[in-house]
Amino acid sequence: MAVKVVHYSAVRAAAVPDVAGVTIRWVIAKEDGAPHFALRVFEVQPGGASPHHRHWWEHEVFILDGTGQVLTEEGDFPLQPGTAVLVPGGVLHQFRNTGEGLLRFICLVPHAELEGWAGEVQARGK
Amino acid sequence: MAVKVVHYSAVRAAAVPDVAGVTIRWVIAKEDGAPHFALRVFEVQPGGASPHHRHWWEHEVFILDGTGQVLTEEGDFPLQPGTAVLVPGGVLHQFRNTGEGLLRFICLVPHAELEGWAGEVQARGK
Repeated sequence: MAVKVVHYSAVRAAAVPDVAGVTIRWVIAKEDGAPHFALRVFEVQPGGASPHHRHWWEHEVFILDGTGQVLTEEGDFPLQPGTAVLVPGGVLHQFRNTGEGLLRFICLVPHAELEGWAGEVQARGK
Repeated sequence: MAVKVVHYSAVRAAAVPDVAGVTIRWVIAKEDGAPHFALRVFEVQPGGASPHHRHWWEHEVFILDGTGQVLTEEGDFPLQPGTAVLVPGGVLHQFRNTGEGLLRFICLVPHAELEGWAGEVQARGK
């Protein structure tokens, strides 16, 4: 595996299918040799939001710019630059831009192959 | 597991043992219920640097503030806000603050239990 150094803005911003006003950059991905998790940068236009959904994997998020809200089934929380969010797997969630500028954040996710791994380790009592 | 929302600055900045001028904040950790990887925020004082070392786990880094350099056995690379770095496991590396202000960055690492996992999955051909 090789060291990768890249400015996030040099990575192509792709539209997120069926989600208006949101782009994703896969800044560090499996294809780069990242063995466990990927680092993506999202940009959400004013008034926009990520899907209101749930999935097995967790999110670890860090807000870079803008203001917004994360809606979860455990409550809604304000977002500003420097806010970090852990959304555990299985929890319904949505990130909303409630400000006038871009909402830009980092969002990390485990690779698909890790599904079930944490439960297995816990069961083994490790 | 519960949702965690916290501003990174509200997390205690701990000194890094034997490393002058560097603090670490464990913003999202295993203790928070993060199942696979942890999100830490480092601050390096001007002239300071992280250890020049290697270990089995990878780093995924995102520069928030300041300027610096990452030294690796594959070359040295400049760092500015928005630069992302993948340091694969086993690669000798060091993050240096070469600017006049704080160098602040996010650094993500897999939990210790993941050691060997990626190799196992690859061997299984999954």
